[in-house]
Amino acid sequence: MAECFQDAMPGDVCFGCGTENPHGLRIRSFWEGDEGVCRFTPMPHHQGWPGITCGGILATLIDCHCMATAMASAVRREGRALDSEPHYRFATGSMNLRYLKPTPNDRPLVVRAQVTEVKDDRKHTLACGVYSGGEKTVEATVVAFRVYRSDWPEEAGLGGSAA
Amino acid sequence: MAECFQDAMPGDVCFGCGTENPHGLRIRSFWEGDEGVCRFTPMPHHQGWPGITCGGILATLIDCHCMATAMASAVRREGRALDSEPHYRFATGSMNLRYLKPTPNDRPLVVRAQVTEVKDDRKHTLACGVYSGGEKTVEATVVAFRVYRSDWPEEAGLGGSAA
Repeated sequence: MAECFQDAMPGDVCFGCGTENPHGLRIRSFWEGDEGVCRFTPMPHHQGWPGITCGGILATLIDCHCMATAMASAVRREGRALDSEPHYRFATGSMNLRYLKPTPNDRPLVVRAQVTEVKDDRKHTLACGVYSGGEKTVEATVVAFRVYRSDWPEEAGLGGSAA
Repeated sequence: MAECFQDAMPGDVCFGCGTENPHGLRIRSFWEGDEGVCRFTPMPHHQGWPGITCGGILATLIDCHCMATAMASAVRREGRALDSEPHYRFATGSMNLRYLKPTPNDRPLVVRAQVTEVKDDRKHTLACGVYSGGEKTVEATVVAFRVYRSDWPEEAGLGGSAA
């Protein structure tokens, strides 16, 4: 059984979360209780200001971690293993980001997300925060839509046929 | 006189807009009338889905382009040249992003931003859109705060001394 959310997203080429993108952030997300949690240490070129992480990189972490948490939550709600079929994939509807204070770039940060609302199985709303040394530096509300499931006909999803 | 906004941001190491970040997006923004405009062609590793740009990369483009447009707008409001001193720099307070449709990754995209409100010279609100082939694919409202000016004492800003 895959414990890492992204290991249950085969073929993912995404800059933020794709296990198949050698130039991306390749984030890894896991359950800690009801929270999806991603631990990530930025690289020097992820700076926005000297020593401070770029707001766009933080948005990428939040976006991709929330999509993976929505997927893992949808599978969990069905009482089945993370890597069981059908695989689900979510895409971002909206993100509201509030940058509370600068996020240091030279140490690990933690991204925590929780599904707060599910509508028609398809629309998931998540509350997400980025933490550095225990302090919340960014908070976000993210809406995710399920746009792909592996048992749909190939042309129905935003998945492999999207190009 | 610098015409490109980022040429008036010396020492910028940012992943999105830093002329001094060899691994970043290195966006370039210019005035077209009252709009700040950035034209950018994503690279294959900026995908989120096959052929579709990563939402986090789009957030990065919007964030950095809006910060540069806020800077250029503040300087223009003072009736002086973009590269004249003092240099200003803005940091992101909040971003509300709505992803309207997938953004193709294999062709140029255009990011357009306009300052819609200025409060106390320090807080700028911007309306921003990403366009592909003339269609708007993402829209955003962004709040920028001026956090640095080059004639402040070094310890006052979020600038060179932030590390």
